[in-house]
Amino acid sequence: MQTSQRREKLLTKMEALGLDAMLVTNPENRRYLSNFTGSAGHLLITPKGTALIADGRYWAQAAEQCPDVELIKFRLEEHESLVQCSARYLAGTTGTLGLEGRYLVVGDFQALQRDLSEGWSVLPVENTVEEIRQIKDAHELELLRKAAQTADRAFRKALEALKAGMKESDLCLELEYQMQKLGARKPAFDSIVASGPNGAFPHAGVTDREIGQHELITIDFGAYRDGYNSDITRTIWLGHLNVRNRKIYESVYIAQQLAVEAVRPGKTCKEIDAVARQSLIDAGLGEYFSHGLGHGLGLAVHELPGVRSSSLTVLEPGMVITIEPGVYIPGETGCRIEDSVVVTETGCEKLTRSPYQDLDQSHPLEAVGA
Amino acid sequence: MQTSQRREKLLTKMEALGLDAMLVTNPENRRYLSNFTGSAGHLLITPKGTALIADGRYWAQAAEQCPDVELIKFRLEEHESLVQCSARYLAGTTGTLGLEGRYLVVGDFQALQRDLSEGWSVLPVENTVEEIRQIKDAHELELLRKAAQTADRAFRKALEALKAGMKESDLCLELEYQMQKLGARKPAFDSIVASGPNGAFPHAGVTDREIGQHELITIDFGAYRDGYNSDITRTIWLGHLNVRNRKIYESVYIAQQLAVEAVRPGKTCKEIDAVARQSLIDAGLGEYFSHGLGHGLGLAVHELPGVRSSSLTVLEPGMVITIEPGVYIPGETGCRIEDSVVVTETGCEKLTRSPYQDLDQSHPLEAVGA
Repeated sequence: MQTSQRREKLLTKMEALGLDAMLVTNPENRRYLSNFTGSAGHLLITPKGTALIADGRYWAQAAEQCPDVELIKFRLEEHESLVQCSARYLAGTTGTLGLEGRYLVVGDFQALQRDLSEGWSVLPVENTVEEIRQIKDAHELELLRKAAQTADRAFRKALEALKAGMKESDLCLELEYQMQKLGARKPAFDSIVASGPNGAFPHAGVTDREIGQHELITIDFGAYRDGYNSDITRTIWLGHLNVRNRKIYESVYIAQQLAVEAVRPGKTCKEIDAVARQSLIDAGLGEYFSHGLGHGLGLAVHELPGVRSSSLTVLEPGMVITIEPGVYIPGETGCRIEDSVVVTETGCEKLTRSPYQDLDQSHPLEAVGA
Repeated sequence: MQTSQRREKLLTKMEALGLDAMLVTNPENRRYLSNFTGSAGHLLITPKGTALIADGRYWAQAAEQCPDVELIKFRLEEHESLVQCSARYLAGTTGTLGLEGRYLVVGDFQALQRDLSEGWSVLPVENTVEEIRQIKDAHELELLRKAAQTADRAFRKALEALKAGMKESDLCLELEYQMQKLGARKPAFDSIVASGPNGAFPHAGVTDREIGQHELITIDFGAYRDGYNSDITRTIWLGHLNVRNRKIYESVYIAQQLAVEAVRPGKTCKEIDAVARQSLIDAGLGEYFSHGLGHGLGLAVHELPGVRSSSLTVLEPGMVITIEPGVYIPGETGCRIEDSVVVTETGCEKLTRSPYQDLDQSHPLEAVGA
């Protein structure tokens, strides 16, 4: 889809909200609507046209990336802020200017109120562009598949280095190195390698703990390339799991597969969350699943729709979400399994395709037939 | 310095600003004042005590990291936002609440205005904690030295892999890998490896361009470890530079060394900027030095003081700044040399210590005597 088509969709939403212009400052939203990848700049969307206000570092880049957008050259030496420059662009007209309530900071908000010419009022709105971003087009899906594939391949490579006694941090580094070697610009987020008791923290990072045998190891990672992210979690082990850990792993695996199978257009996110949650309750582990089931994935690692017990969003073809139930037993261990899927006309397609370790396998590489 | 002493300093500033409480939402400021390293949470500073409002993911961590701070347990399931929870904590008292104007977003600002009990007004302020953070204590300097040393050592290692025909992206990956192998948690920022004409962009990233012989290669990178960052740039080459490139490199080198030598307590940042700028003007290259000389460095990669022609900040012992003049010739080439230094009682000490390539050396490793 052309960025101009995306802007058309936004203009329709703006009209419904009573907005005559909208100031887009969130980097992912800016990129989505214009192709501009710079780290600073204001995008001003109006029914008459779109302007990008950027400083000298980005002029050549903006001309190349978004030739159909008017470039307003912002000069720092004129002691003007981006906000002032945006306000000046709107001078001579009147209306209501929409702002991104979750991204514009108070300081800029107050400056804007001060600098806008009379006849303009401001209205903070939320999720306006993000709701449009929920449905991915074919090109976005291609990039998301590539990011997922990069993570899958790197995982396979990193597992070749895995052995008991290896530090969590060294396995993490190997994994991140392989992703970048395979074309990722960087990890999509701070990767997690949480072994044994460290797995009990849903947001564990990485420590220098040595990975032992016969314990669960949760690995949560993703690749960032061409602006898009992947997100996958596998729980693995070396040696053999005891009865307790087998039960935990199997229960999380079943909950995850059932939830993936339940994904289809027309279902609400809440219903998908409930499938995994009920499965873990039935296994007697419900109290240890302490977070939502998943989240949207795209230009941002966490985006709409949220996949939680409170989310009434109805799934539509083209939405990309993660399905990641987990069990976290304080002081003891933890386990999470996650895939990213795209909603299709009839169900869903997995973007992440790394195999899952089987209970009778003593090394995760066995799962890939190595 | 204890975090309690840092909070005492802030309370003194708050009194001068007429603030009865301050809501700290910036992650680096929060960490600086409490030791809490979590990625979410509100820190509320009042003369009567300090409270950290955090969700369940962080309770164990907060109890360990900041035992002298009251932990307010925020529960997502109560459908309350962090902002509402903060407002509730202040209920029953009155006064003026300071907010971080550059970090609190409009949405939270408006929610706070709505949820705060009567008798409270809000006042966005800027740089209040950041100004305190400018002067580093002994422990911070130790961590900054370690981060700088990690970058230096990784650079030395990465240069062993450097050869003509290597892609910028592969050299970058090697460098980032080595930093992490040596203990960095991650790169401090998106590293730059800009060869030949790519060097003409001050904020070039990394491309798949193959590094050639006899051209300038700008490498700007840093390590993030234990919360602190390093930042260093070296310009290097393979083979021999032509007269034009020799002139550019030598001019930037001289400007950088003169500016480093000029750093001492009592000087303004503006004066240090002027030393490098004048040196490049004298060399006939002034028009190509298109950015400020440097910036403060610490918990954030860019922090106070700015080292620019407009900065009237007077240098004090304990300030850590970068000195990074550059020359960028559109379509042709670029060169930048950067060190991070700490202001001492009598001058400054370099934190980054990688050697500079000499004009008669055909590989940067020769500079380290390898």
